[in-house]
Amino acid sequence: MMTVGVNGYGTIGKRVADAVSAQPDMRVVGVSKRSPNHEARAATEIGYDLYPADPDRTDEFEQRGIPVAGSFSELVAAGDVVVDATPSGVGETYRDLYKEHDTSVVYQGGEDPDVAPHSFNARTNYSDSLNSTATRVVSCNTTGLARAVTPLREQYGVQSLDATLIRRGGDPTQTDRGPINDILPDPIGVPSHHAPDLQAIMPDLDVTTKGVTVPATLMHLHSVTVSLEADPTAATVRELLNDENRIELISTASGCQSCAEIQEYVLDTGRRRGDVWENCVWADSIDVSDGRLSFFQAIHQQADVVPESVDAVRALCGAMDGEESRSTTDESLGVGM
Amino acid sequence: MMTVGVNGYGTIGKRVADAVSAQPDMRVVGVSKRSPNHEARAATEIGYDLYPADPDRTDEFEQRGIPVAGSFSELVAAGDVVVDATPSGVGETYRDLYKEHDTSVVYQGGEDPDVAPHSFNARTNYSDSLNSTATRVVSCNTTGLARAVTPLREQYGVQSLDATLIRRGGDPTQTDRGPINDILPDPIGVPSHHAPDLQAIMPDLDVTTKGVTVPATLMHLHSVTVSLEADPTAATVRELLNDENRIELISTASGCQSCAEIQEYVLDTGRRRGDVWENCVWADSIDVSDGRLSFFQAIHQQADVVPESVDAVRALCGAMDGEESRSTTDESLGVGM
Amino acid sequence: MMTVGVNGYGTIGKRVADAVSAQPDMRVVGVSKRSPNHEARAATEIGYDLYPADPDRTDEFEQRGIPVAGSFSELVAAGDVVVDATPSGVGETYRDLYKEHDTSVVYQGGEDPDVAPHSFNARTNYSDSLNSTATRVVSCNTTGLARAVTPLREQYGVQSLDATLIRRGGDPTQTDRGPINDILPDPIGVPSHHAPDLQAIMPDLDVTTKGVTVPATLMHLHSVTVSLEADPTAATVRELLNDENRIELISTASGCQSCAEIQEYVLDTGRRRGDVWENCVWADSIDVSDGRLSFFQAIHQQADVVPESVDAVRALCGAMDGEESRSTTDESLGVGM
Amino acid sequence: MMTVGVNGYGTIGKRVADAVSAQPDMRVVGVSKRSPNHEARAATEIGYDLYPADPDRTDEFEQRGIPVAGSFSELVAAGDVVVDATPSGVGETYRDLYKEHDTSVVYQGGEDPDVAPHSFNARTNYSDSLNSTATRVVSCNTTGLARAVTPLREQYGVQSLDATLIRRGGDPTQTDRGPINDILPDPIGVPSHHAPDLQAIMPDLDVTTKGVTVPATLMHLHSVTVSLEADPTAATVRELLNDENRIELISTASGCQSCAEIQEYVLDTGRRRGDVWENCVWADSIDVSDGRLSFFQAIHQQADVVPESVDAVRALCGAMDGEESRSTTDESLGVGM
Repeated sequence: MMTVGVNGYGTIGKRVADAVSAQPDMRVVGVSKRSPNHEARAATEIGYDLYPADPDRTDEFEQRGIPVAGSFSELVAAGDVVVDATPSGVGETYRDLYKEHDTSVVYQGGEDPDVAPHSFNARTNYSDSLNSTATRVVSCNTTGLARAVTPLREQYGVQSLDATLIRRGGDPTQTDRGPINDILPDPIGVPSHHAPDLQAIMPDLDVTTKGVTVPATLMHLHSVTVSLEADPTAATVRELLNDENRIELISTASGCQSCAEIQEYVLDTGRRRGDVWENCVWADSIDVSDGRLSFFQAIHQQADVVPESVDAVRALCGAMDGEESRSTTDESLGVGM
Repeated sequence: MMTVGVNGYGTIGKRVADAVSAQPDMRVVGVSKRSPNHEARAATEIGYDLYPADPDRTDEFEQRGIPVAGSFSELVAAGDVVVDATPSGVGETYRDLYKEHDTSVVYQGGEDPDVAPHSFNARTNYSDSLNSTATRVVSCNTTGLARAVTPLREQYGVQSLDATLIRRGGDPTQTDRGPINDILPDPIGVPSHHAPDLQAIMPDLDVTTKGVTVPATLMHLHSVTVSLEADPTAATVRELLNDENRIELISTASGCQSCAEIQEYVLDTGRRRGDVWENCVWADSIDVSDGRLSFFQAIHQQADVVPESVDAVRALCGAMDGEESRSTTDESLGVGM
Repeated sequence: MMTVGVNGYGTIGKRVADAVSAQPDMRVVGVSKRSPNHEARAATEIGYDLYPADPDRTDEFEQRGIPVAGSFSELVAAGDVVVDATPSGVGETYRDLYKEHDTSVVYQGGEDPDVAPHSFNARTNYSDSLNSTATRVVSCNTTGLARAVTPLREQYGVQSLDATLIRRGGDPTQTDRGPINDILPDPIGVPSHHAPDLQAIMPDLDVTTKGVTVPATLMHLHSVTVSLEADPTAATVRELLNDENRIELISTASGCQSCAEIQEYVLDTGRRRGDVWENCVWADSIDVSDGRLSFFQAIHQQADVVPESVDAVRALCGAMDGEESRSTTDESLGVGM
Repeated sequence: MMTVGVNGYGTIGKRVADAVSAQPDMRVVGVSKRSPNHEARAATEIGYDLYPADPDRTDEFEQRGIPVAGSFSELVAAGDVVVDATPSGVGETYRDLYKEHDTSVVYQGGEDPDVAPHSFNARTNYSDSLNSTATRVVSCNTTGLARAVTPLREQYGVQSLDATLIRRGGDPTQTDRGPINDILPDPIGVPSHHAPDLQAIMPDLDVTTKGVTVPATLMHLHSVTVSLEADPTAATVRELLNDENRIELISTASGCQSCAEIQEYVLDTGRRRGDVWENCVWADSIDVSDGRLSFFQAIHQQADVVPESVDAVRALCGAMDGEESRSTTDESLGVGM
């Protein structure tokens, strides 16, 4: 049984904790949280041991009747692995503490690539992180691109990838983020940081990414063009992507024509929090013309890195090979609509 | 065991079906649906018998592999009660059919008040609809106002009510509704239709309502002013509202400062679809000055009429008194955070 | 000829500069700006002398070819009056400098009321600031309320005022402000800060204000209820408000049913920047029932304090009485659609 | 002096009327309008003769005091050319009437290409429409692409063009259009209709376009990738585009980082209605890698076809060659920031 601590019980951390709990070979030893808010309370109601990240605020938790299991160092010491789900750039500040306790760590994509010896996608380069002490799951957008490009590379070869990433301005509860009514090239410079992030796990890929930010909160939408080294039919590409368990082909006939409709669908099926772990590729958007493949996919920024984070724990522990880990994770969570 | 058919398996209908299923004394005999889309498929996956509302499209269901249980008339005949959750103004077109089959019916607030002999709120006038053949649950906004005003009237007396209803422009999947970037007095005329709708269940209430539409999808927000016949403290009013099971006092300290944060909280607790059946009143907004009470409440347009629809079924069947019905409904659903 | 410097050439400052320039009895001696951006360039293209607010960045202006007229102190010294249009809370930091140069100053409503001996609305209390060294124009929302309430008080007497202020989340170019998809009671506590701000110019007014923030950028919308000491007809109130030059009655029949349509209308008439200096009251929303008056008004947060700032300059200079100043300002600008 | 009637005085029509008025060699003989609303009134206040499009509603205009100049047929008869700016698909219904009066006509891109013998872009194929009786200005998005691609083709040759068109959901006053909080592939199928629309004026272009709709009202944003037949430097491409008068290079250093900031800038410079006639290409987004050129451009859907419509009038009249017409139009309007 791998023991896992989760540092940062926010948007990603709470999902990772639930996903780890659902695995047959893992156990959550506790979660940390900075503020004694409703998320902290919800964590204890689910049954997670709670460790305040900030020792100066321990009293606040107790004053609000939120039980505290121990100090933050105790949490780090208790886990074989910590999944660090703290805000961008914060994870790095814990690096020495993790080392001190000989606890392996899975960082998120908000950290600089050099926070860990490897960057990670379960489909692309699982084995690079086997038995390492640290790895970094690439960001939600990069994860989405990696999942789609990897089988295309294996099957056809990829000359170049051009993707426009139409990014949600903020998550649903980030009420202080905009824009309210604007479309921003973000960043203006081309390529955006996603291209080098993707190259961190596929060093020889010729890739250009462009980022745009829009007033929406639900999912990112990718407009992807791939120059293949072969010229398959659209139907063949559909089959190839359909064989990937973390890619879901969305049929227009089903009525799912937008990000909101995808979220409604998964809520209707009873998925907690409306999480969409899979790349959602619209089947009808897949078009191939002279080896130039185009398609749209939607990526749920709150959920798509969750199964990858679970797999990263197994890679660090050397517990399984990538294929077995992915299938264990997916079966436990119910990935694949 | 009361048998219930649900006509219209959309935003309201699918929630009503699940809520009826959760009752100890009710059973869903089937649901109807016009289009063979992903909602129709989801209904059959949950296990509901599906009856196409449009006989001309029965074949389409079968072509998509969605099993059909029978004709629409059979559904109407099979239930003691039909909950009509068809779009505004459509319910009325089924009135003769319901009568023909001697099936009682619960209409929604989108219908004209004269579609049924009574309008209904479980807290305000449950007994008016006892053993009737038809009743109409008032709209989501009116339901929210009724729940808050009823205990205030009982306890203090109400001289007048002024409410500004800041309405979401559309539900999350209604991508063809706006506005995108505007604030509209909607309607421009004062009062809006909510005032007479409220008077349909509280005929002697002096009430003015103003409607405004904004670019948001999650919940309505009410800014309420009530002139009371007494001058209680804010703390007393808090206690009074806190005693109502379908009113939830939201504490600012918890971090729930907006509609999005309320939805995130209920999703975190595992509620299906993020449904908020309760009026959410911000405790810190309750202010009383010279008997003039002010507060903010958020109303989930997709969910707040669901427990009322369940109670309305019981009223028509004469199965219980209002208090017993409300407590049975609430316990079965988990109303009360 | 009154000489006026404008400190802060942003959303408000650039409009004040243009409005001052349009007056027959005033002259802009220069404007200050912190960043050498496109607004700074536009200022010099219009012909304003530009004074960098931050001496350390003077070189940056010159490097970008934006001519600099002198040091910031020189600007302060050159004007009879400075209109301070710096961001909220910044104006106060200049107070000593203004005193040192014996320059009178008009602050904006983002400053604390005690920044100046008086708060100011041209219609409500012009004479309080006559020949003073400093005054503070109340905020855009408060200005809008003051303009509407003042004639109602004079004509009928006001027992109490309840207003729900539905505020735009940010100005059009404030792309880092939200919310994107939410409705927030903001602040949650009642009353919002607008009530005491209004009492700063009408000390004996019984007023409760509630603030709500929504995802829109164009204008604020006020839902107003006034308990009058008389019971006039709606038609009489319409006439009364129609007589106010800074209140525009919007007829629904004209097609202006929302904030966006008001802005389009003024842009069509050729107004620079689409500025709406007037309170826009929807005529059809005016309703009186037992002396309780209700109406909707839209307030352009970028423009409505501009004529007031011009009048405030005249009050400090003791140049005219309030009525003459208002009519001079309005005629020069073209206030009144 | 060419005489021009404008059929449809809405978003496009009112701008075309003003642009035609500004030309030294053209005169507006009148405009038509269906509803006697504030736009109709504004037209007469500017001085345009107004012809009701619907004879049954002529009385309504007069009842509201909006002067009527004559019947719709008289307007068609009076002009050498009619610019048809009616809603999509409506223009076609007037075709026979235009023919009957021997009046040439400029249609907009909402009509089917076969409404006229040619489709038109002033930079791409002006001469095709010389002395013709009808032409059709391609849609705003296609116009934006044509302006950018034409010089690239001339200078370097274009192998293929891939563009993702991130479209505003509606214009500012279209309050009934969404989405409110969603990102939609629109259409889901690839390519979108813009590719064949572009091929209507560049038949041999290898082009794939993808459409996405987002909750914004201000401008469209294009993410463009062009495979060139040469491998120029980014700086060279910047110069090439900078030489085009209807392309404006936006410098990030200026502070214009989004569509909203572009609109604010042009409003500051005093342009009526904030119209942006030019393609706005962010200079810093121009990137060339192995002959694959990438850039972002913003397109003002309300204004970019206006100068093209003016040029189309000249082409039909055979009055000038394309280069002379474009430079006359641009000088008269002030195109080029």
